[in-house]
Amino acid sequence: MKTLKTQIAIIGAGPSGLLLGQLLHNAGIETLILERQAPDYVLGRIRAGVLEQGMVDLLRQAGVSQRMDAEGLVHEGFELVLNGRLQHIDLKSLTGGKTVMIYGQTEVTRDLMAAREQAGAITFYEARNVQPHDLKGERPWLTFEHQGQQVRVDCDYIAGCDGFHGVARQSIPDDVLKTFERVYPFGWLGILADTPPVHDELVYAKHPRGFALCSMRSSSRSRYYLQVPAEESIDAWSDQRFWDELKARLPTDLAAQLVTGPSIEKSIAPLRSFVVEPMQYGRLFLLGDAAHIVPPTGAKGLNLAASDVSTLFTILCKVYREGRLELLEKYSQICLRRIWKAERFSWWMTSMLHQFPEADGFSQRIAQSELEYFVESEAGRRTIAENYVGLPYEAIE
Amino acid sequence: MKTLKTQIAIIGAGPSGLLLGQLLHNAGIETLILERQAPDYVLGRIRAGVLEQGMVDLLRQAGVSQRMDAEGLVHEGFELVLNGRLQHIDLKSLTGGKTVMIYGQTEVTRDLMAAREQAGAITFYEARNVQPHDLKGERPWLTFEHQGQQVRVDCDYIAGCDGFHGVARQSIPDDVLKTFERVYPFGWLGILADTPPVHDELVYAKHPRGFALCSMRSSSRSRYYLQVPAEESIDAWSDQRFWDELKARLPTDLAAQLVTGPSIEKSIAPLRSFVVEPMQYGRLFLLGDAAHIVPPTGAKGLNLAASDVSTLFTILCKVYREGRLELLEKYSQICLRRIWKAERFSWWMTSMLHQFPEADGFSQRIAQSELEYFVESEAGRRTIAENYVGLPYEAIE
Repeated sequence: MKTLKTQIAIIGAGPSGLLLGQLLHNAGIETLILERQAPDYVLGRIRAGVLEQGMVDLLRQAGVSQRMDAEGLVHEGFELVLNGRLQHIDLKSLTGGKTVMIYGQTEVTRDLMAAREQAGAITFYEARNVQPHDLKGERPWLTFEHQGQQVRVDCDYIAGCDGFHGVARQSIPDDVLKTFERVYPFGWLGILADTPPVHDELVYAKHPRGFALCSMRSSSRSRYYLQVPAEESIDAWSDQRFWDELKARLPTDLAAQLVTGPSIEKSIAPLRSFVVEPMQYGRLFLLGDAAHIVPPTGAKGLNLAASDVSTLFTILCKVYREGRLELLEKYSQICLRRIWKAERFSWWMTSMLHQFPEADGFSQRIAQSELEYFVESEAGRRTIAENYVGLPYEAIE
Repeated sequence: MKTLKTQIAIIGAGPSGLLLGQLLHNAGIETLILERQAPDYVLGRIRAGVLEQGMVDLLRQAGVSQRMDAEGLVHEGFELVLNGRLQHIDLKSLTGGKTVMIYGQTEVTRDLMAAREQAGAITFYEARNVQPHDLKGERPWLTFEHQGQQVRVDCDYIAGCDGFHGVARQSIPDDVLKTFERVYPFGWLGILADTPPVHDELVYAKHPRGFALCSMRSSSRSRYYLQVPAEESIDAWSDQRFWDELKARLPTDLAAQLVTGPSIEKSIAPLRSFVVEPMQYGRLFLLGDAAHIVPPTGAKGLNLAASDVSTLFTILCKVYREGRLELLEKYSQICLRRIWKAERFSWWMTSMLHQFPEADGFSQRIAQSELEYFVESEAGRRTIAENYVGLPYEAIE
């Protein structure tokens, strides 16, 4: 068996694994990434596109922000639609100057892959049967198969960046983890189209027919979503039906401006809230979707992974440079404080904006009143804005 | 049958009926109040004691504020207990100078009764079998029995201020009203004691054993509450058990300062959210608990009745003085906009602070995170404060 050595073994070459790898590489800490899929598969995943200031800063710190800074769209606000009217959430004025960056997750991943390749750091794509070992010991190791060969990696620490279905969380004994979960009774039907966005900011629409979101990847590529029943079949949704339903859920004047066109991607994603505690087991650390899922309302998924990356990166730097081993035990609690706040915000945005098929009249009126109050009140709008741009990262002393 | 005439017949001599009567009397509009109970019974009801600025202003406008202004306690803030620590909500600084007044509902009622007697306006106490008639006609009338006599009252309008169980709402055909309701799986066990309050501000405590509230009626009379199961028997709660349980739910240093003593009143109240729409049927108008109930967390019940009184009073003045009959049709929608905001706040305070026996782990963490976020964030604290002191009354043009 071929044996390799590294300091940090990272499972998963999605944006969090790659970003952690790049930050560590720049800091002189050696990494090795194992990814189950091929690069093209990773880049084929269509995901979020709203980056918080904290993540933008982290990408700049990692030295991979050139294209984002050139091509990304800075958004200073977004729109909520309530009772058929646009209600502007002015992120910049409500947060004392903070904004978000519209730049697709696919593009972030592409930039990080290119940077890693240029840095000469090693990534094993199509690494099969990745298995972590001796997580509670001083020298954990992994095994995997690569191009028909068995490989072993010895390392100091393992970062599990391999998503909800990955091996990292599954390597932790069941009785160690406490799981918190909510499955919502609906999904998001998403469409990607090479049409100009209907509005220059994102539009989150509450409507009796169901929630709709007008988003974008660039000034010529739109991303739209519709709330659909959880068990909906994609076959039931022709492009024409999608555009008709979207128009029905938008204010008339906005619907009139919608430019439609053939979809270049169409898919249905379930909505789920999920957290495991703790996010550490011995020398294995979970990051991003491996430890927590948010429903996409509020655009927190990728950003939450980035704050986990920032936390683990900061701790590992202090461990290697200052011998601060005790910080390793704090990783989980530091991450979870911010994660639960983002889980709360994502749950809130989801609960207030969607139609719940089983909701009684009182719950419906409360959701309506809650949204009306938060939109009318300056303090209410500030709570939405400061969560949307992202709560600050916790300082690690 | 004896027949009387008045402009406004008011059913119920609780604080809302009496306050409406006083305001109308001062404006030269004649009222007659019918109350099912004797005055002492009305005064024996122990209820809320936190008055919003809007209600304080209304009592001053009615000319019944002398004792309240002398004896009431102005509170500039309150305390939330979270994770065993007091978190101050500075109402005054968070709302640009607004405060609340601690002055018992019983005292408000007593002052209003005295003012009405002094004004020589008529109240029939122990009025039995009150029945409204011809509500959809031009000249509605009521019948009732008083000291063995049948009495008829002809009037222009009827104000239903007779509470949740009163006849006013029940006089409206079922198919006219839409009901919104939530019954909570717990009640409040309340105790009144002639002991100095444990803290100079109200203390709302979230605790794994259940919610607790430290309130007061004056600087020498305390009112404390404990969350108990919905079906709890009062017999199971000796004074000693109450004080022991209260101490267990308060931070240690606060519990150490608690002065206990014999209870002078002890009762269990269920918690309920309830709204009917509309709040008008022909010439009958519903006010306060006749149309809506809030759980007591947030102290909105009496205050919400006062804003209904303000709305109906303003409309009736414009009707009699300016012939603005069209305003009568707006009563319900004007009231309901503010009511649903207060229902939302009361539901929120209740949901965040209590333990729900059936809540799953995710819901518990969300409630915890929600409260932590709102307490930590200045914008979050402002949303709590501006609702607690009371959202502004709507201007009626």
